[in-house]
Amino acid sequence: AEELKTLAEEAGEQGCAAPVAIRVNPDIDPRTHPYISTGLKKSKFGVQMKESLGLYDAARNDRRLQVRGVSFHIGSQITRLKPFVEALQRVADLVQKLRGRGCAIEMVDLGGGLGIPYREETPPSPEAYGRALKDVLARLKLRVLFEPGRVIAGNAGILLTRALLRKRQGIKRFLVVDAGMNDLIRPALYGSYHEILPVRKKGGGKAKVDVVGPVCESGDFFAENRPLPVINPPDLVAVMSAGAYGFVMSSNYNSRPRAAEVLVRGNEFFVVRQREEYKDLLKGEHVPKFLV
Amino acid sequence: AEELKTLAEEAGEQGCAAPVAIRVNPDIDPRTHPYISTGLKKSKFGVQMKESLGLYDAARNDRRLQVRGVSFHIGSQITRLKPFVEALQRVADLVQKLRGRGCAIEMVDLGGGLGIPYREETPPSPEAYGRALKDVLARLKLRVLFEPGRVIAGNAGILLTRALLRKRQGIKRFLVVDAGMNDLIRPALYGSYHEILPVRKKGGGKAKVDVVGPVCESGDFFAENRPLPVINPPDLVAVMSAGAYGFVMSSNYNSRPRAAEVLVRGNEFFVVRQREEYKDLLKGEHVPKFLV
Repeated sequence: AEELKTLAEEAGEQGCAAPVAIRVNPDIDPRTHPYISTGLKKSKFGVQMKESLGLYDAARNDRRLQVRGVSFHIGSQITRLKPFVEALQRVADLVQKLRGRGCAIEMVDLGGGLGIPYREETPPSPEAYGRALKDVLARLKLRVLFEPGRVIAGNAGILLTRALLRKRQGIKRFLVVDAGMNDLIRPALYGSYHEILPVRKKGGGKAKVDVVGPVCESGDFFAENRPLPVINPPDLVAVMSAGAYGFVMSSNYNSRPRAAEVLVRGNEFFVVRQREEYKDLLKGEHVPKFLV
Repeated sequence: AEELKTLAEEAGEQGCAAPVAIRVNPDIDPRTHPYISTGLKKSKFGVQMKESLGLYDAARNDRRLQVRGVSFHIGSQITRLKPFVEALQRVADLVQKLRGRGCAIEMVDLGGGLGIPYREETPPSPEAYGRALKDVLARLKLRVLFEPGRVIAGNAGILLTRALLRKRQGIKRFLVVDAGMNDLIRPALYGSYHEILPVRKKGGGKAKVDVVGPVCESGDFFAENRPLPVINPPDLVAVMSAGAYGFVMSSNYNSRPRAAEVLVRGNEFFVVRQREEYKDLLKGEHVPKFLV
């Protein structure tokens, strides 16, 4: 309500009508990690569907605002169609209801959330996702927006790292690599699984190892008790599915410059982001005179 | 063993003796978060105490190496003295054993780990910590190194943020602030508690709110169900105890420039690190010609 009011005032000052789409909360459990479930009743995002009716009425009755659409987003890394379909059905009911009240709903934004295979997940393909939603969407006759992210970028990127050290500690074995949790925090933050492959194929048996980085905490791991072929330093190792929520979440923790980003096209490669240097870590720092 | 060999070879080439201190693993549970427990049998850090004997023998018998000391580090945010004392006692026994075998142990590095009050913890003071270790250390007659970090910096820093929005969602209430998990990831990563205070004291009753940021996931929170006085935008809010593992772990997630760092001295303040700008986020990026 506050935001609508501000929007209307700004539009009024400019003598035009501001387009309005309200993000509603379909309250569907996407069955994914709690941190990336974003359409539940208890989520910080959006507004309750019930509550949205009053907001749409207010917008419809304000000539400085122009009702256009509805938006929702139930979460990320969703590997089944059911939550998407259920959420869309609820939103479709809302659209009908809003139209019945005189709101000209022209568009719906379905957000993102389609999952990818990190391990043995079998998420629906974008085609299957489209097919499942098509009938409901066709009935509604409106412009459709999607916000796919992970499904495009996730499996288009790997984290390339070099084995530094093999280590046995009591009953445990470690493979220490030169990438750390600062480069890819998903395993520590979400308990995520990332496939780990030696860059050159290895035969022979597998043994369980923890794949860890050089950062100063035990949260600095890429895999725990993972059966892997014997990888010897300085072999290169690929941490798979690192194209989404990888570099964008990376930090300089432990004074580690961030990685270079390399785009591969057929047999060519292009450095699309330079590796950071130590001087980048100090950039913008100023020591006050009294400390010099 | 590999690392000792490399060290010896490098020292040999330079015609000098390399000083050696081995990080041992006292296998003491520090009773802290698993991610920051670093001296357990299953940890990636250090070597088992038993195993260290052979390494020290090898080092002692190599004229290119000069045995100097022992180092250990059992974890971080430790709020009791017992784990420190127990670990030191184990290391003290090791020092005696090593001296018995002819190793001239001159120094011990006790690492860091002393906890700070985030909430109602009552960690021992540095004085109490010193007193508890003094007798054992005095008997050993050696140079003592410490690596304190959080206990110095943790409560010397706050994260200052501005309230953007109060929001009710079903039974839940949210206070949305302009800092996010990209600025301080401890709550999401470790489930950490940070005290949250309005910058200007507030009277009146308290109500439970989730204090959340503007980042696109539900992991973007600073506090959940926290009883707080009514904070109205654009009030300033202090997220306390943010001086350690705060800015150093911050990222550009959600294309958010990192915060400025400000040093306060009495009534003066100094910007010691400039706020990042959007152009900093693109620094070092190159678009290959075939994409232009």
